[in-house]
Amino acid sequence: MAYKTPAALYKMVPVEEALETVLSEVTAPKDSFWCPAGICFNHVLDEDVVAPLDIPDKPVSIVDGFAVVAGDPAKEIEICGESRAGHVDEKIVVERGKCCYVTTGAALPRGADAVVMIEDTKKVEDTKKVEVGANVLAMSAGENVRQTGSDMAEGECILRKGKLLDGADVAMLNSLGISRVHVFGKPVCAVMSTGDEVVDAGARERGRHQIFDANRPALKACAERHCSSVVDLGIAGDTEGRLETLVEEALEDKVDVLVTSGGVSMGDADLVKPFLEKRGKVHFGKVLMKPGKPLTFATIERDCGQKMLVFGLPGNPVSSYVTFNLVVVPALRKLAGWQKPLLKRLSAITADEIKMDPKRPEYHRVILSLPKAEAFAYSDPGASEASALALVAKSTGFQRSSRLLSLRDANALVEVPKGSGSIPAGSRVSCLLLPVSNATF
Amino acid sequence: MAYKTPAALYKMVPVEEALETVLSEVTAPKDSFWCPAGICFNHVLDEDVVAPLDIPDKPVSIVDGFAVVAGDPAKEIEICGESRAGHVDEKIVVERGKCCYVTTGAALPRGADAVVMIEDTKKVEDTKKVEVGANVLAMSAGENVRQTGSDMAEGECILRKGKLLDGADVAMLNSLGISRVHVFGKPVCAVMSTGDEVVDAGARERGRHQIFDANRPALKACAERHCSSVVDLGIAGDTEGRLETLVEEALEDKVDVLVTSGGVSMGDADLVKPFLEKRGKVHFGKVLMKPGKPLTFATIERDCGQKMLVFGLPGNPVSSYVTFNLVVVPALRKLAGWQKPLLKRLSAITADEIKMDPKRPEYHRVILSLPKAEAFAYSDPGASEASALALVAKSTGFQRSSRLLSLRDANALVEVPKGSGSIPAGSRVSCLLLPVSNATF
Repeated sequence: MAYKTPAALYKMVPVEEALETVLSEVTAPKDSFWCPAGICFNHVLDEDVVAPLDIPDKPVSIVDGFAVVAGDPAKEIEICGESRAGHVDEKIVVERGKCCYVTTGAALPRGADAVVMIEDTKKVEDTKKVEVGANVLAMSAGENVRQTGSDMAEGECILRKGKLLDGADVAMLNSLGISRVHVFGKPVCAVMSTGDEVVDAGARERGRHQIFDANRPALKACAERHCSSVVDLGIAGDTEGRLETLVEEALEDKVDVLVTSGGVSMGDADLVKPFLEKRGKVHFGKVLMKPGKPLTFATIERDCGQKMLVFGLPGNPVSSYVTFNLVVVPALRKLAGWQKPLLKRLSAITADEIKMDPKRPEYHRVILSLPKAEAFAYSDPGASEASALALVAKSTGFQRSSRLLSLRDANALVEVPKGSGSIPAGSRVSCLLLPVSNATF
Repeated sequence: MAYKTPAALYKMVPVEEALETVLSEVTAPKDSFWCPAGICFNHVLDEDVVAPLDIPDKPVSIVDGFAVVAGDPAKEIEICGESRAGHVDEKIVVERGKCCYVTTGAALPRGADAVVMIEDTKKVEDTKKVEVGANVLAMSAGENVRQTGSDMAEGECILRKGKLLDGADVAMLNSLGISRVHVFGKPVCAVMSTGDEVVDAGARERGRHQIFDANRPALKACAERHCSSVVDLGIAGDTEGRLETLVEEALEDKVDVLVTSGGVSMGDADLVKPFLEKRGKVHFGKVLMKPGKPLTFATIERDCGQKMLVFGLPGNPVSSYVTFNLVVVPALRKLAGWQKPLLKRLSAITADEIKMDPKRPEYHRVILSLPKAEAFAYSDPGASEASALALVAKSTGFQRSSRLLSLRDANALVEVPKGSGSIPAGSRVSCLLLPVSNATF
């Protein structure tokens, strides 16, 4: 019996180098497509969007009221017609002593240059007049009027290529009558578990030495927010034949990114690395990080020349979760057209002492909390108050890579440099934001 | 012709009171259901989850290597068998002078109490022995071993009722073999636009005085992240009959929250308030806020006694976007079981001077940026450095409620109190986080 240690052959690469290698293999984003403007959010724009018209396209009223000539000295003004949003009487001409009823958003009739709010007027009983007091006399031209192009000007670039679209962008596009835009497609990701010891939760039978698969369901959940679809390849077990079949399936299914978990550490049952060596190109097989040291990255070329990215994540559930977010997510984002695909980095203050690892930089899971505020209060923050404005990073406790509770509520990773000793509580540290649902943060 | 001003009849309520009223009408969250643990993320848990088993359920190896008796003085140790994750030979007993090959996650054979890493050993050629040097002599019991229940203990409550589930929670549940959990359902929301002046982007014909509907598509996009489904009721125009038909449709379709935009301000074409008065109960019809003053909230009771919430949002696209996020989103969240449904409040520092409105508190749209950090750097933040740890709020510019560009990239709202003058740049202010896709923040 031979105890091969395939991983021993790999050079340990720093995380920065690993990320650079991965992103350099994503040579282009997915093809873009015409997407209806109503459902384009969460996609990245593949064109500059230029306003095809002015908003508003003519001077319109900002309020419900009466269109007048600003500076008109009359105290009672005769109503000569009405202009409603969508229904405008083109024959009306407003002059001094006259006004026109207008609703919010309605075009100003000819002659009028300001609008007096309905709240500032009073109908004169049994007449066609309104009392305006000194309101109109004191007005300047343009009051309560939105001028042509003052919200968006025809020809103005309102959204740049590379923008990740959200609800507000949907509003902008639709307001301009733009019904579809070019956006990048999102990648297809496939997820597989390895190892004979793994069974699905809810499986009818579990052997005495088997464990439930935590990784595949969690990675699928994490992949979903960045992908057009996520394929579940199931559990490959520990035989090369099954692994090969599933990888070929992924290649045929036009999967962009294949993610496996388990089978990449030092044991002789760890088939993933040797298989990837044979079938494609392994770019790295060990990364200087904790958790996640056995992280493996390979590419397999299709007959058409296009490459499938393959990430061999460690089997420990915390390691697979951390490496997925740290290294796989940027690849998925770059494929989806993101211009800054890496996790966002920010400064925070530690709430606890954090022990350093002497050999590897560590990604310590923390719960970031926001600096407290009182509603509608503002103040000049003196030096003494300034530190209360920092985000605070609270450790999730014991960080062993099998301890899933270290991920509970975690919304960021503190980047802990390798070293001896500890980072004291109250230190400024660098953190990476985990992509979690917005409840947490 | 009479210019009724129905809105004039309404008392202006403060935002806090409006929110309280809305949330008090959400008397219970949606019914919970059994959800497969693989797809439970983005739902709120309706039960405490207690670990039904220990993880691990027996002592297991943390590494690939050889299970030994800690303190064994032998320098070469005989391999007496192997224990692989999932395949364990129950007959093996390890004693001094002997060891057993183990893979990561495999159970420790009887007698063994520690594991020496494969990297720290060397196979002795043509024998069944490994050289361990002084490694094992120096070991203490438990080294490289995960003890029973040390990651999760049977009976421990690992997730509390009310938790919004995410990828890491999916991992926890599955690791325990839990294949389904009780989660709250999400609400059904319906969205409608009013006004004869409104047409859809992409419409074949647009009248000279018509504008494109920016609200309905944007509100649908915003509603989607909090709802099980979003119903598009189209454009109601300015006739009461059509409005009535659509509202009855929503009532029949089991819509929980109906959102209209437009038709709630002071004009006589503004049908929404009078219709809601007739059909249900209007709780408020004017709110002391900018933008969003005409915001209207009503409930309509169904025959079964259950209520549909109706929000009449203003027609200006910025007003509808802001009021939706500020007031409708908390209602949707409470229906989905969130325990803290309001937008998150935090302190930030203003990058620009912000003018105050003398009459109304204002929600000034800003882009929050994170405090910069250098990767893996940590330091003791002196008083001088502390202010660099604050989030900075940059205004999106001119805040008129028709100017959609004031929403571009905005990820928060500064709560500006009513007042004269300005809040200077560099002030500490209170902000509310907008629920936007994670790219922005």
